[in-house]
Amino acid sequence: MKKIRLLTPGPTPVPERLSLRMARPIVHHRSPEFEAVFARVREGLAWLYQTKQDVLVFAASGTGAMEASFVNFLRKGDTAVVVDGGKFGERWGKLAKAYGVNAVSLKCEWGHPVEATAVEKALRENPQAKGVYVQANESSTGVYHPIRELAQVTAKTGAVLVVDAISALGAMPLPMDDWGIDVLLSAGHKALGLPPGIAFLAASEKAWKLNESADLPRFYFDVKRERDSQRKNQTAWTPAIALVEGLDESLAMFREEGLENVFARHERMARAARAGMQALGLTLYSKSPSPAMTTVLAPDGVDSEKLVKHLFKQYGVKLVGGQDAAKGKIFRIAHLGYFDDFDMLVVIGAIERGLHDLGARIELGAGLAAAQHSFAGGG
Amino acid sequence: MKKIRLLTPGPTPVPERLSLRMARPIVHHRSPEFEAVFARVREGLAWLYQTKQDVLVFAASGTGAMEASFVNFLRKGDTAVVVDGGKFGERWGKLAKAYGVNAVSLKCEWGHPVEATAVEKALRENPQAKGVYVQANESSTGVYHPIRELAQVTAKTGAVLVVDAISALGAMPLPMDDWGIDVLLSAGHKALGLPPGIAFLAASEKAWKLNESADLPRFYFDVKRERDSQRKNQTAWTPAIALVEGLDESLAMFREEGLENVFARHERMARAARAGMQALGLTLYSKSPSPAMTTVLAPDGVDSEKLVKHLFKQYGVKLVGGQDAAKGKIFRIAHLGYFDDFDMLVVIGAIERGLHDLGARIELGAGLAAAQHSFAGGG
Repeated sequence: MKKIRLLTPGPTPVPERLSLRMARPIVHHRSPEFEAVFARVREGLAWLYQTKQDVLVFAASGTGAMEASFVNFLRKGDTAVVVDGGKFGERWGKLAKAYGVNAVSLKCEWGHPVEATAVEKALRENPQAKGVYVQANESSTGVYHPIRELAQVTAKTGAVLVVDAISALGAMPLPMDDWGIDVLLSAGHKALGLPPGIAFLAASEKAWKLNESADLPRFYFDVKRERDSQRKNQTAWTPAIALVEGLDESLAMFREEGLENVFARHERMARAARAGMQALGLTLYSKSPSPAMTTVLAPDGVDSEKLVKHLFKQYGVKLVGGQDAAKGKIFRIAHLGYFDDFDMLVVIGAIERGLHDLGARIELGAGLAAAQHSFAGGG
Repeated sequence: MKKIRLLTPGPTPVPERLSLRMARPIVHHRSPEFEAVFARVREGLAWLYQTKQDVLVFAASGTGAMEASFVNFLRKGDTAVVVDGGKFGERWGKLAKAYGVNAVSLKCEWGHPVEATAVEKALRENPQAKGVYVQANESSTGVYHPIRELAQVTAKTGAVLVVDAISALGAMPLPMDDWGIDVLLSAGHKALGLPPGIAFLAASEKAWKLNESADLPRFYFDVKRERDSQRKNQTAWTPAIALVEGLDESLAMFREEGLENVFARHERMARAARAGMQALGLTLYSKSPSPAMTTVLAPDGVDSEKLVKHLFKQYGVKLVGGQDAAKGKIFRIAHLGYFDDFDMLVVIGAIERGLHDLGARIELGAGLAAAQHSFAGGG
């Protein structure tokens, strides 16, 4: 018997409750039955976003919401400051190019967060910039960018702060209204535990103001059309009905646990994962570790790709390695979504076994013990 | 007890096999396990499309694929001939407007198909037109447009034929290569029986040639990027993993039944539905009835909206009425996807009961008897 365990930062494991809910007979989307579910989902999303704005729902994966954050708020030839600190930050630049937006790219060394002062400087040098685009959690590096500080910077300018929280929403506090985030986009297949295919976006008054003059072409991802429709608990186009049902269930689970407890759980797992890895003598890759994931440099002589493959083949444990610049160098521990303390023991235990198998000199059990002490409040 | 029955032309009922498959633990999309499934799905879709071209998969509902059929093949200022015979045909014009395409709209009276000669004339008068955009089955009216004839017209010109087969693929023959359809787009939540959220598009050589010079901005729906990626059994962006798994199962069901049998089943249900309605003295709404659905004028004095609501409230039978111009006037019988002969007895029986309840003078059982004779080859 080989038990398969998905321990990746998206897709994340789908809670049984969600699977059962989504397996129910499908309802028609133009019906009062669907509208009742959608109304509850809209309310739940606003609660999770901590916003008074409409949180719009799209049938798409996260990149669709990233596209929506460009085409709905910018004009052709506009300037945008984009934070490029990894594979997902890089995508902003590609989007800008595709839509004729002039991107001022703030390159961060992989593993490093952007400095708020660098964004401030870029906005000073490019006062015409309409927006700052950044990830809350850059999934390719496990870096948390300082969103709150960035919001304080953009608040003093005409630029909006656009935050990709695809792998962050629900794993860490991102109170949209309180912090002054202007566009907050996310997706269902990370902390919310849904299969991929549903994405979200909310906009501040400042961003809706930009929307009025935005002239980039858009149709499927038109936020204005969706807002008009979704305020009536309908979507402009056919919604991903089963995922909306699953989202209703996922939000119910969040409500039952309580938002503070959800964030505390993620923070607790993150702390234990870091303690475990450090106790094995390993080096953390991210200089600004995120509550959503822990990225770790493989020890000298160990190819992280080989480790990841070995863990799946030998033990059915699915981790992910590094992408692009970090390929072969790092592995990534997910603690994002339907994970708890004991899942961290599994992942740390698997990493210990895998490293041992591949001949790395680590002390078996040391990572687990450190995690246990961390959970118990000792480390 | 009230048994709920979804008898609508999209979403359509999800076969149990698909629900069970999609409820399995989710797999990571960047893995050999997913690639094996995706390779099989790509092959199955090409079989269903009857094409040698790549059938590309998107995480979106059908409108996303409609957008893809504009942005990937046209330049700003290009002319497109759009067939507008209902709510979905109308959408072409809205897309054209959003993207700065000059739409030559061929309005058809609701319930009527476009004439191939009208398209020929439009192309003669607009020789610069790059494409003809049309639905195979216009879901709002149940009209089948003469796709094969239209392909013969466009073949003689520089224009490509773009066919929206969202509610047609898998319900009627649309052999892409044989007929010379240039862009064939579709979605999973109709004949394929999936929950909404996955869409498809394939393009001919002629269309790929247009793609080389197309300059409308695109990113999420970029077919070139997807083709490069999907040929390696990966998607450019995170795919709707659970729906891809469900699609694998759905295509397996299609293969088991055999394509000819699938089409024959739809044709048989359509014939029986028409016979049943006519035996009740009702008038068919579509002048070119589709194998995917049967549209019927409510009898004098009966509001079709009221009928549809009554059927759901009283009997749990979910039909749909008319949209926009046809609202209150027609109801639509779906025989598209996971339906068989006996489901037609349910739907005809429910319509008989509902009309009787609302005081229409119909002969109870007459529709059912006509359907039975039709099935038995007598009608």
